[in-house]
Amino acid sequence: MSKYDLIRQSAYEANMQLPKLGLVLFTFGNVSAAEREQGVFAIKPSGVPYDQLSPENMVIVDFEGKTVEGTHRPSSDTQTHAVLYKYWKTIGGIVHTHSTYGTAWAQAQRDVPIYGTTHADHNTMDIPCAPPMDDLMIQGNYEYQTGFQIMNCLQEKGMTYQEMEMILVGNHAPFTWGKTAEKAVYNSAVLEEVARMAYLTEQINPQVARLKPALIQKHYERKHGKDAYYGQ
Amino acid sequence: MSKYDLIRQSAYEANMQLPKLGLVLFTFGNVSAAEREQGVFAIKPSGVPYDQLSPENMVIVDFEGKTVEGTHRPSSDTQTHAVLYKYWKTIGGIVHTHSTYGTAWAQAQRDVPIYGTTHADHNTMDIPCAPPMDDLMIQGNYEYQTGFQIMNCLQEKGMTYQEMEMILVGNHAPFTWGKTAEKAVYNSAVLEEVARMAYLTEQINPQVARLKPALIQKHYERKHGKDAYYGQ
Amino acid sequence: MSKYDLIRQSAYEANMQLPKLGLVLFTFGNVSAAEREQGVFAIKPSGVPYDQLSPENMVIVDFEGKTVEGTHRPSSDTQTHAVLYKYWKTIGGIVHTHSTYGTAWAQAQRDVPIYGTTHADHNTMDIPCAPPMDDLMIQGNYEYQTGFQIMNCLQEKGMTYQEMEMILVGNHAPFTWGKTAEKAVYNSAVLEEVARMAYLTEQINPQVARLKPALIQKHYERKHGKDAYYGQ
Amino acid sequence: MSKYDLIRQSAYEANMQLPKLGLVLFTFGNVSAAEREQGVFAIKPSGVPYDQLSPENMVIVDFEGKTVEGTHRPSSDTQTHAVLYKYWKTIGGIVHTHSTYGTAWAQAQRDVPIYGTTHADHNTMDIPCAPPMDDLMIQGNYEYQTGFQIMNCLQEKGMTYQEMEMILVGNHAPFTWGKTAEKAVYNSAVLEEVARMAYLTEQINPQVARLKPALIQKHYERKHGKDAYYGQ
Repeated sequence: MSKYDLIRQSAYEANMQLPKLGLVLFTFGNVSAAEREQGVFAIKPSGVPYDQLSPENMVIVDFEGKTVEGTHRPSSDTQTHAVLYKYWKTIGGIVHTHSTYGTAWAQAQRDVPIYGTTHADHNTMDIPCAPPMDDLMIQGNYEYQTGFQIMNCLQEKGMTYQEMEMILVGNHAPFTWGKTAEKAVYNSAVLEEVARMAYLTEQINPQVARLKPALIQKHYERKHGKDAYYGQ
Repeated sequence: MSKYDLIRQSAYEANMQLPKLGLVLFTFGNVSAAEREQGVFAIKPSGVPYDQLSPENMVIVDFEGKTVEGTHRPSSDTQTHAVLYKYWKTIGGIVHTHSTYGTAWAQAQRDVPIYGTTHADHNTMDIPCAPPMDDLMIQGNYEYQTGFQIMNCLQEKGMTYQEMEMILVGNHAPFTWGKTAEKAVYNSAVLEEVARMAYLTEQINPQVARLKPALIQKHYERKHGKDAYYGQ
Repeated sequence: MSKYDLIRQSAYEANMQLPKLGLVLFTFGNVSAAEREQGVFAIKPSGVPYDQLSPENMVIVDFEGKTVEGTHRPSSDTQTHAVLYKYWKTIGGIVHTHSTYGTAWAQAQRDVPIYGTTHADHNTMDIPCAPPMDDLMIQGNYEYQTGFQIMNCLQEKGMTYQEMEMILVGNHAPFTWGKTAEKAVYNSAVLEEVARMAYLTEQINPQVARLKPALIQKHYERKHGKDAYYGQ
Repeated sequence: MSKYDLIRQSAYEANMQLPKLGLVLFTFGNVSAAEREQGVFAIKPSGVPYDQLSPENMVIVDFEGKTVEGTHRPSSDTQTHAVLYKYWKTIGGIVHTHSTYGTAWAQAQRDVPIYGTTHADHNTMDIPCAPPMDDLMIQGNYEYQTGFQIMNCLQEKGMTYQEMEMILVGNHAPFTWGKTAEKAVYNSAVLEEVARMAYLTEQINPQVARLKPALIQKHYERKHGKDAYYGQ
């Protein structure tokens, strides 16, 4: 028994959702689950295939990125997770994948435009694509800087991490987050489907316009506003 | 036992077909099944995952949109279903999904052109895309107005709900209906496949022409005409 | 026991391959298996879902298109099968599907160009797309005329049914055939994959050229030539 | 018992991964596994469906392409495997598939450009597409010459087989290799996914630029450099 058993279990279950949802090939993705009071998170071990994962081989890391408990090396993206947990005080889970359509938009270095209510049910703005970082930062502590790249992009676009829970890192791939690891995985699947639909929409109508504000507001508010009436 | 058990069961079974047919991600869809003599329909509870559905948690609602029986909140799209049942006297089932290709055409705000016999086996006209509604209507009783948006679009295009059992709501997603919930689900799957084929057809030949009238009539009539010879 | 049990079994098994290979939605396809000495073929009953098929409900039809044995109505495309069996003396199976990519090329009214060795492993020429037939023929015995439409197209392009075992009927969908029903099903799956690859190839390189003759000959001959060395 | 049991088992298991990973239709692919000390490799028998494979029907062939043990005829691509094993002294496995996206790029006769980190995690350069060979070579010992076509292409582009473990043969399809058959299969799946993402990237942004050198180096080195920190 360990005081970290709960987040190990959460991280394990959330990681196992990625292949079920078709979001990863081999080991190209990772999920972490945080425990705010203990100041740590559990994250997938690096390069371990999904069918060899267990709650026991999740690695416990603190918000400075130091391993606290675990016999495996944590995900190579661990520093990105640590930075985001440190600065974003209310998130409890982070997901990184190379899901096909999200990654294609990231490689194209384009924000995903808000074309329909499926998008507006989750976000009121385009899903941002952070620019690739400067060479010096890449050559330095790359994964740590990726965290700042994500935070800076949201700031420059005037978005908060509470309202926009997903981003594309330019030339790289998606990151998503949420109050729980489960919610962050949900966001990864939504991002992938919205990215796929936006791609098809532009193919079907290259002159397509963005969704109008009244529809964006209506759909977002009915799920997330103070008078939300979606769900139980 | 309840006098609504039969439509609860129908609605449940029809809802469970959506994930099997690949038409929904998470809870992005809902099916209802109506009982005309009782003047009610059974509909999916809002935001409940498909693997937690049961005949028991279907909600019974009347054609004015008021809940008659059930412990859950009905689908957020319930008012759209109620309006359509109220005005379209012979339909027994309605489906709403955000299926990928149908939604992409809706986001592109384009009717799905009739390019082949797969389409003509089911419809003699393009599948219509209703325009997004006015902002005042969106800000009012949105789901209720969506029902009128659908009915008005058919009327303006000179179509009846008996001959055209599917529509795209612009910027939003597909709605389909039919004499039973099962038939409405069938129509949703047909719409998705026809939308996918039409997208590919335009990619393969941007100058493609619509199907000629003689072929439209032949294929539609052999399945739906008075001398139909398709099926048992 | 019936003297037609063998072809009923063959037709049943071949039909059941269609959903497994992802070539049909609902009942949009049919396979027949012929017995040349008896002058009949077994074919799928019209409009019966694949999960309700059995060897027993296959319908026995002669090469004039008349039902010989069976309690169900045969496929609505039965006359097309009958014509092809009557005139093409060495085929033993026919398949019709509305598979997605094959149908998209048919709707685009384009032959599928020979772009690679996957195509050349099976054919030395573009897969032909027969033009839609004249309105008078459509309004007459449509399915019977479809058989002639297929035969005429091959003839005009200088192809024999022995070397080209697949065709697209313009605005409609694919037909394939072969010495057995099993081989005809194989051809349907090959056509679908080759059509999909050709679509992607043109998207990746709009100026792409056809495969050169030496490669066409090499790949076709190593599988089908007199010195073939593919297979056991 | 045979002294080749180990590579028969390896080749069998690696071949069986191809359908699981969605990389083959019917028999359109083959894997071999080499044993350097014995100077032989085990390869899939030609044209045998995957569900009829067993370790026992793998064929043992030497690096001159001569069958050493086995009752079946080896893959028609055996000479290509033999040539590569003969000249590339450190590879232990080779895979050939007609996977959809890789084959589409090969048919388009284009290198797959390096657009993102998913690509850079595995290669620092575009995945090369070898030009189709001269007609005289095609008409001669085609599969043997294919091996040279592959080796010459790498040489002309200044790549070594150790750093670039995948290639497209123009108008044909992908070949991949690696230290083991398992690694070569992994490379085939990576190639297919990278080819798919590159296709989508160009559709989403036709003016997209290649990944910049600093990101290529960072991602490649963190997995393959002397200070690699990916994996356990």
